[in-house]
Amino acid sequence: MKNFDINEDPHRRYNPLINEWVLVSPHRSKRPWQGQNETISPDALPEYDPTCYLCPGNVRANGMVNADYESSFVFENDFAALKQDEIAFEENKKETFFKATPERGISRVVCFSPKHNLTLPEMPAEAIENIIRTWQKEYMDLGNVAYINHVQIFENKGSVMGCSNPHPHGQIWAQSSLPTEVEKTQKNLKTYFDKHNTTLFQDYLQEEMKLDERIVVENDHFVVLVPFWAIWPYETMIVSKRNVSKITDFTETEVTDFAVILKQLTTKYDNLFETSFPYSSGIHQSPTDGELHPEWHFHMHFYPPLLRSATVKKFMVGYEMMGESQRDITAEKSAAVLRAQSNVHYKNR
Amino acid sequence: MKNFDINEDPHRRYNPLINEWVLVSPHRSKRPWQGQNETISPDALPEYDPTCYLCPGNVRANGMVNADYESSFVFENDFAALKQDEIAFEENKKETFFKATPERGISRVVCFSPKHNLTLPEMPAEAIENIIRTWQKEYMDLGNVAYINHVQIFENKGSVMGCSNPHPHGQIWAQSSLPTEVEKTQKNLKTYFDKHNTTLFQDYLQEEMKLDERIVVENDHFVVLVPFWAIWPYETMIVSKRNVSKITDFTETEVTDFAVILKQLTTKYDNLFETSFPYSSGIHQSPTDGELHPEWHFHMHFYPPLLRSATVKKFMVGYEMMGESQRDITAEKSAAVLRAQSNVHYKNR
Ligand SMILES: O=P(O)(O)O[C@H]1O[C@H](CO)[C@@H](O)[C@H](O)[C@H]1O
Ligand SMILES: O=P(O)(O)O[C@H]1O[C@H](CO)[C@@H](O)[C@H](O)[C@H]1O
Repeated sequence: MKNFDINEDPHRRYNPLINEWVLVSPHRSKRPWQGQNETISPDALPEYDPTCYLCPGNVRANGMVNADYESSFVFENDFAALKQDEIAFEENKKETFFKATPERGISRVVCFSPKHNLTLPEMPAEAIENIIRTWQKEYMDLGNVAYINHVQIFENKGSVMGCSNPHPHGQIWAQSSLPTEVEKTQKNLKTYFDKHNTTLFQDYLQEEMKLDERIVVENDHFVVLVPFWAIWPYETMIVSKRNVSKITDFTETEVTDFAVILKQLTTKYDNLFETSFPYSSGIHQSPTDGELHPEWHFHMHFYPPLLRSATVKKFMVGYEMMGESQRDITAEKSAAVLRAQSNVHYKNR
Repeated sequence: MKNFDINEDPHRRYNPLINEWVLVSPHRSKRPWQGQNETISPDALPEYDPTCYLCPGNVRANGMVNADYESSFVFENDFAALKQDEIAFEENKKETFFKATPERGISRVVCFSPKHNLTLPEMPAEAIENIIRTWQKEYMDLGNVAYINHVQIFENKGSVMGCSNPHPHGQIWAQSSLPTEVEKTQKNLKTYFDKHNTTLFQDYLQEEMKLDERIVVENDHFVVLVPFWAIWPYETMIVSKRNVSKITDFTETEVTDFAVILKQLTTKYDNLFETSFPYSSGIHQSPTDGELHPEWHFHMHFYPPLLRSATVKKFMVGYEMMGESQRDITAEKSAAVLRAQSNVHYKNR
């Protein structure tokens, strides 16, 4: 009988953050692709687009005029998924299949730059620092709203990720409940913390750094790695080396180092297929429910869909929806590929 | 303070099958869309395509020749995500972040029809009965393999769902472990069964039929409904009225009724945007681990991505990946829209 070879044989890996498994099929990356090709986003966008509702000074759908901003710019989402209204509601205590509860919240848009065509990897690190400070301010302000218990900072980049405007921007959805994925994660982080009195991330990071198989890049205060249990082909996570539970705890040097590593990671991403690399990213950190959360440890997820080229993505469909997530290359392979990418953006070579 | 109106106000709904929530934003369906448009699949395909690797008599990538089949045709996936080889493996009993176990399995492709251009809604119900009998046979044969504990039958339809060939076909991935989503569901079904001594589905179906707000179509033995906790815009579920735990328990009449309702549902789907409606579907039923599973109750999920038209889909991205699934129209609205669709396919009008 053949011995298990994690680089060759189909296997499952366990994700301790959400207590779920992923199916890994390392041998499958050679299968031919005759399916859908994604359209590549045009590389030549203007610095200012008079029809863009995110560019400075332009009018939005609801008639509001954007500030003539010079660094970042935050406004309430004109088509927010959440509303601030307080809603009267009496909980039905009976066991029923029809459990629904009103949800209050605030959705904001964060423009990263006044320039319509300037994505993270092409910004100077100082401009990224400014975005991080904006995230800090928003996390604080929104978190201070009495009924807001969770602040989700995220970015959808690229049309393939449902982003409807190439102007560099992210979003923040702040709400009264812990969203499903965050609640699952918190539960597992807490179990770990209660047992070991260290955060799961502290211990995991230490092991990863010892093994040095899945590290993409690091600096004094942050590490980028492909998690052992990654589901997306080039999924990564930025983890703070220090055990900080939220972005507002960063020191000045940490802000700088976070900006530098964000620039490095997104540059490597763009270089991989020489395209503006699509992804959804998001920060997981302490809820703002007023409790102490020693179990939380700052990290930022990157879920990029591209698999083989600028136009062929991984589809999480039938088996993945009914069964479990499945990937065709190992996390170790992906980390090696990303690590090998230059830190100089391909457009500047 | 305004009273909670489930048709108007943002709220969360609970999914008892997987113990997760979904964010519902009924007011948000009016937001304009400037993002990615999907390409519509060409309507005029030939009945036979000499370059298609699924058409009868054609040669596949690995050199094998397809049978000259007349109804359905099953073969092993040439680029299977799972392999049948037995792998020697010693479990690491220590607590570690790097939990991986080899996974054995069999992946098959099921061609639904020799005709390259004949999708389910356009087939005669008798031809669909034949597909159901094929599923029964495969469930039985694969389930009888000693190391196979779960048989996942599914279909990815349409290029937007990662399907690389329009020839009508589905897949079966059979494996030694219970996949993540199935395991979650089983856990919740079992808890319910142990407590009530009825299946969750029996009781849920009864409530849904009493309320009659989310039923799309029904016949003597099956119901199609939009689950209260649906995440995809036009997500549905076909549920057997009788408490059967697996497809091989169907009576002859049930096979007929299942075929009829499959045809009706997929016809309504095609009629909705007058396009070959993309979706991933999959059957959830009893595992094949040799245990009795009285908690399982046959159902088939349909997860279709289209939201507003044949070209605009719902993206489950940033917030949905980091936080939780989010939808813009209520389940009740979707059910009413689907119910109103004709049972006559738009091409035959
Ligand atoms: O097996 P296929 O049709 O080549 O591939 C399709 O279905 C599989 C199972 O859902 C997915 O893993 C693939 O990402 C998808 O493209
Ligand atoms: O808010 P946007 O950019 O209009 O919309 C995008 O991001 C949202 C949050 O992830 C998703 O719900 C939408 O499906 C997606 O198209």
